[in-house]
Amino acid sequence: MSNGLDDLLTILRFPSVSTDPARTGEVRACAEWLVAKLRALDLAVTLHETAGHPVVVAKNAHRADRKTVLIYGHYDVQPPDPMAEWNSPPFAPEIRDGRIYGRGATDNKGQFMAHLRGLEEALVREGDLPVNVIVLIEGEEEIGSPHLRPFLETNRQDLKCDVVAISDTGMVAPGVGTFTYGIRGIACLEVKVRGPAIDLHSGIFGGAVANPATMVARLAASLHDDDGKVTIPGFYDQVRPVQEWERKAWEALGDSETEILNLTGAPELFGEPGFRERERRWARPTAEINGIGGGYQGEGSKTVIPREAMMKISFRLVPNQNAGTILDLAEAHLLKHRPRGVTLEIIRGHTGPSYVMDPHSPLGQAARRALEQTFGGHVALIREGGSIPIVQAFKEILGVDTLLLGLALPDGQIHAPNENFPVQSFHDGVRLNQNLLKELAV
Amino acid sequence: MSNGLDDLLTILRFPSVSTDPARTGEVRACAEWLVAKLRALDLAVTLHETAGHPVVVAKNAHRADRKTVLIYGHYDVQPPDPMAEWNSPPFAPEIRDGRIYGRGATDNKGQFMAHLRGLEEALVREGDLPVNVIVLIEGEEEIGSPHLRPFLETNRQDLKCDVVAISDTGMVAPGVGTFTYGIRGIACLEVKVRGPAIDLHSGIFGGAVANPATMVARLAASLHDDDGKVTIPGFYDQVRPVQEWERKAWEALGDSETEILNLTGAPELFGEPGFRERERRWARPTAEINGIGGGYQGEGSKTVIPREAMMKISFRLVPNQNAGTILDLAEAHLLKHRPRGVTLEIIRGHTGPSYVMDPHSPLGQAARRALEQTFGGHVALIREGGSIPIVQAFKEILGVDTLLLGLALPDGQIHAPNENFPVQSFHDGVRLNQNLLKELAV
Repeated sequence: MSNGLDDLLTILRFPSVSTDPARTGEVRACAEWLVAKLRALDLAVTLHETAGHPVVVAKNAHRADRKTVLIYGHYDVQPPDPMAEWNSPPFAPEIRDGRIYGRGATDNKGQFMAHLRGLEEALVREGDLPVNVIVLIEGEEEIGSPHLRPFLETNRQDLKCDVVAISDTGMVAPGVGTFTYGIRGIACLEVKVRGPAIDLHSGIFGGAVANPATMVARLAASLHDDDGKVTIPGFYDQVRPVQEWERKAWEALGDSETEILNLTGAPELFGEPGFRERERRWARPTAEINGIGGGYQGEGSKTVIPREAMMKISFRLVPNQNAGTILDLAEAHLLKHRPRGVTLEIIRGHTGPSYVMDPHSPLGQAARRALEQTFGGHVALIREGGSIPIVQAFKEILGVDTLLLGLALPDGQIHAPNENFPVQSFHDGVRLNQNLLKELAV
Repeated sequence: MSNGLDDLLTILRFPSVSTDPARTGEVRACAEWLVAKLRALDLAVTLHETAGHPVVVAKNAHRADRKTVLIYGHYDVQPPDPMAEWNSPPFAPEIRDGRIYGRGATDNKGQFMAHLRGLEEALVREGDLPVNVIVLIEGEEEIGSPHLRPFLETNRQDLKCDVVAISDTGMVAPGVGTFTYGIRGIACLEVKVRGPAIDLHSGIFGGAVANPATMVARLAASLHDDDGKVTIPGFYDQVRPVQEWERKAWEALGDSETEILNLTGAPELFGEPGFRERERRWARPTAEINGIGGGYQGEGSKTVIPREAMMKISFRLVPNQNAGTILDLAEAHLLKHRPRGVTLEIIRGHTGPSYVMDPHSPLGQAARRALEQTFGGHVALIREGGSIPIVQAFKEILGVDTLLLGLALPDGQIHAPNENFPVQSFHDGVRLNQNLLKELAV
């Protein structure tokens, strides 16, 4: 038997970019490869169709006297661009200096494949698992899991479980077991600003009509004050303050500012005044322009007034903000600041609520023991800035908590060129899976 | 003998995009075709190399007792993008409903080819021209004619003339002879805003670092107030007010607001408060964002903090503004508004001064007679919003005025998709050339 890395390299070759309609066939091919892989483990496997990309579900033989653990992952990945910045092709994975490079290496193929390898080893060695397992791997996480919620609702009985386990979050440092008990939510918005019916010569017409590139910039600039605080009225109203034990747990992790400067290469830190670095990322909401564009962006100059310009905004949400409320507030703000001479189209994108669980609960303590056994030493209790909307869906629909036991390292470059995952992290993930199922079985 | 349209269609097939390094060979091929064409008219032709694209110069046999007229044109064109919006390919010209469609049809191949056809007909018919003619066709007008000024300086003696004639401006309406006695200048600037060393996940890092897309928007938004007035300190200080006879001549042209709304398709007019529509375009300076970009602009969403963002700005200048001064003021303004957490790179682009001449001078009156003979009726006296920097160079280096006798129609869509030129305008241009040389010979 191989050590499982070969399977990871194989699945990394699928360009399963869920947001790209041109990749639909390759997303499906990735799901079908997973079905075959899980069938080979003698699990009962189903490829569930959705209105979007399919969901893969696999189960061992369940027994009524055992706990049931749902292991979630996603086989879809972010787009690979900017392509030019990859040192090796995003969908031709390479191992260099102990790291696997490729789109999805950390987010999320590397992590759920470690879980599958953990199951495979246990099944080969023991012929059984300590708990009932449901493996659920979806293909739409990177576009906000639009069809997973209805899927959970439809298959509520079939997916009945005691807890969900997910490795799709980060570790505070290599070798430090990390339990993420909270994540931010997300709400996306795209704004199109339209002016003239055609691109205009900026000499002949400049001065007479509004320029959509200028106007989208004015709208983007209206979202923050000079210090980086979001200026949308009511934006911070529902934010739950950080609790005292959290603040202490985070301060125990030491300074994060130097680490963030090193990881990002930013010239300096910048963020909402009055909060420390971790609180800004883990417990404060944000408004980020993920893309802005209009007019001529190529080489040289083109003296044009573009007929339209656009921006994509995503808000990161924290307890107890409501995504719909935030989009309502944002839309009202944009309409209030609507520039003259142009028309606006505001398109709401995907949303997902934030999530927190209690790491001092029995399930939380089982997870912490599994982390201690795998990595040794103290387990870090953290929140994270990213979003896994489906965690809230598991809570609402299946009625269970989720254990976020992530393996992503700070320099894994997820969502960026040269995404990577250490080979060591893969092997740690295999052991974490086995320790976790054992502790949850107690 | 053909009617000259075939030659125009031929030269329109050259994708002579001067700003695009990939098109260098095709720009040269266009110049070489012109050399062959002019040689076939028995003119003395030279292809002059420059540090950029070549200049084509042709002369008839000069006589000391005749006036010398330099006819200027440019064989380079703007980039054709956005390609998807062309109804026929930009470099495969088509005649539909009496109009020639193709990049360069109006700007400027259609117009200078009408002049060349005028010369060709007169030479065939009379064996001579009424004046000494110097034809000068350059290949860098769309990138600010960076090498024409040194070329004029080097060849000052060889290019000695009494006046320059250019058809590269507009007519106020079809069939209305139009004399453009003033044009705006230009000064270009590109701004790059850099933040993190790599694109970042906006969930994990959002809140901790400055976002270059947000910051380029803040800079762009800092250029104007809500009403559209440029906020760069000192920007308007040197502007020469419009004279009373100009204001009357422009008002005699009737309302332009409806026409501009129809031409542009903009939802409403928008511009500097306190000025009428024509004055805003012809006699007031502007700051336009010609392009802005950063982050993900494709389909779907990508939750990224981009590592950099950019904008291209062009200023249109009027008498008596100085391009260098304006760029100094703009740069000081941008540096004063430099956002925290990012670095700025400001790259100066091409500049060209504005120009005015007196349409009541003897040369101006000759031009007006030629327009009356060609089009009949009243000749419109206008300024224009676009820029022809080389007109100022003719004044400074050759010491002569330039007659701007343009043939571009308001809906010619120059610099935009579906650029076009009426077949009738081409034939008018042929007659204008012949009338002009006759009147200037007096």
